[in-house]
Amino acid sequence: MILKRFTVGTNLTPAQLREQIRSGKWTGPTSGAATGYVQANLVMLPKEAAFEFLLFCVRNPKPCPILDVLEPGRTEPAIAPGADLRTDVPKYRIFKHGHPEKEATDVSDIFNKDMVSFLLGCSFSFENALLAAGVPVRNIEEGKNVSMYITSKPCRPAGRFKSFLVVTMRPMTPEQAVRAVQVTTRFHLTHGAPIHMGSAQEIGIKNLDRPDFGDPVEIRPGEIPVFWACGVTTALAATSASLPLVITHSPGHMFVSDLKDEDLTLL
Amino acid sequence: MILKRFTVGTNLTPAQLREQIRSGKWTGPTSGAATGYVQANLVMLPKEAAFEFLLFCVRNPKPCPILDVLEPGRTEPAIAPGADLRTDVPKYRIFKHGHPEKEATDVSDIFNKDMVSFLLGCSFSFENALLAAGVPVRNIEEGKNVSMYITSKPCRPAGRFKSFLVVTMRPMTPEQAVRAVQVTTRFHLTHGAPIHMGSAQEIGIKNLDRPDFGDPVEIRPGEIPVFWACGVTTALAATSASLPLVITHSPGHMFVSDLKDEDLTLL
Repeated sequence: MILKRFTVGTNLTPAQLREQIRSGKWTGPTSGAATGYVQANLVMLPKEAAFEFLLFCVRNPKPCPILDVLEPGRTEPAIAPGADLRTDVPKYRIFKHGHPEKEATDVSDIFNKDMVSFLLGCSFSFENALLAAGVPVRNIEEGKNVSMYITSKPCRPAGRFKSFLVVTMRPMTPEQAVRAVQVTTRFHLTHGAPIHMGSAQEIGIKNLDRPDFGDPVEIRPGEIPVFWACGVTTALAATSASLPLVITHSPGHMFVSDLKDEDLTLL
Repeated sequence: MILKRFTVGTNLTPAQLREQIRSGKWTGPTSGAATGYVQANLVMLPKEAAFEFLLFCVRNPKPCPILDVLEPGRTEPAIAPGADLRTDVPKYRIFKHGHPEKEATDVSDIFNKDMVSFLLGCSFSFENALLAAGVPVRNIEEGKNVSMYITSKPCRPAGRFKSFLVVTMRPMTPEQAVRAVQVTTRFHLTHGAPIHMGSAQEIGIKNLDRPDFGDPVEIRPGEIPVFWACGVTTALAATSASLPLVITHSPGHMFVSDLKDEDLTLL
């Protein structure tokens, strides 16, 4: 998937972008759109499983940083007043009993008052900060989706929910990695500091050229792979429980909130 | 309440301390016991309200930092293997329909398999770090319980749970306050950076000499009051919903975990 990151939609406000998405004018990935505003992973599931799933997120804060959780049946998040989670994501994925059923651009006919919506942080927030600090972000340089891998590290389970940790990878020099640790530590609600760097095999990744999601990128001589926890973990966990109905965003097609990236920093 | 902080029990391991508590040999406050290990606020409530209460904590992370949440009926927390939350707190408070019913040193006969236990961070963790950084902690100097106040700042409600923010106060010079901000920012899971400093009236506190909980302390010339979010907020919220049964620890009588204070720091 080739993304036109930073070339489209950068001058839209979050509310304008959501309006374009709602009206069907914007159907593509949101990477680079409404730059500087927090984008979020979306999970919707039945309220009878909401405590267990919230517990999974709380127990695994690095891959599943909670930005907002709505009461059952509610669709207007506190982090985006006026928005509607049933219509304001460009592409949804619908899972039945743990299996992908179909994609949709509107889930108003499927979402029901017994469902709870979760919004979780996304690494787009710290990529801009890395660039600002002079750290290269290869997937942006190459106009690709970030490389994602399923590791051999199990998350802490909660009730019916379990998953291995999914990570994103960005290659850089060891000196740049030091700076990247400093920069991303501030963003603790959007995955924070790296979980690993150097040996991919040590966390169960066999071949960096074949990511489980997204695109491969070039690793240059003198560079090491640096790994961050990834929100895709949340989607894998949500569909691990074989619930009758789970709705997520489609990868790269995120919910865009009114929060600014800097609002989420610790320091 | 005069505490013998740092004078007793400092050489016990958490497991030894819990054993003394369980056997009835230790019935007092835990301040200063097993120094360097994380102490926690405890809330136990019916599982039908667990999602709403977890939501309250997630929406108010400064006063209600989540350290551990157990599955319904479970009493051995992940942060203290071998412990039993029904017996390992020196003093419990039992609330029925929102009203305090009695105190107890063991709740094995009351806790039931439909209850969920929550462990939440406590400011004891950063007091040691403040002292190590040369910042005075007046309540420790004076051998008193920390001053606590109910502010006029409402927490973000969740379902039936609501509360005003409760804060602890420590007086210091403005220069020391700068250092205190730096030191406590690292402890984001035990209330983190101050929520306010200077004017008490601005957050609805009428008289610093008359705290709502704990003891008053001296404020010396040139000092300003510095306010941190406080875990007592969690207990007020838990009892705001008039649930048939809620169990909390008694103030100052905390659950002592195997986590070290430094394990909870961000940087």
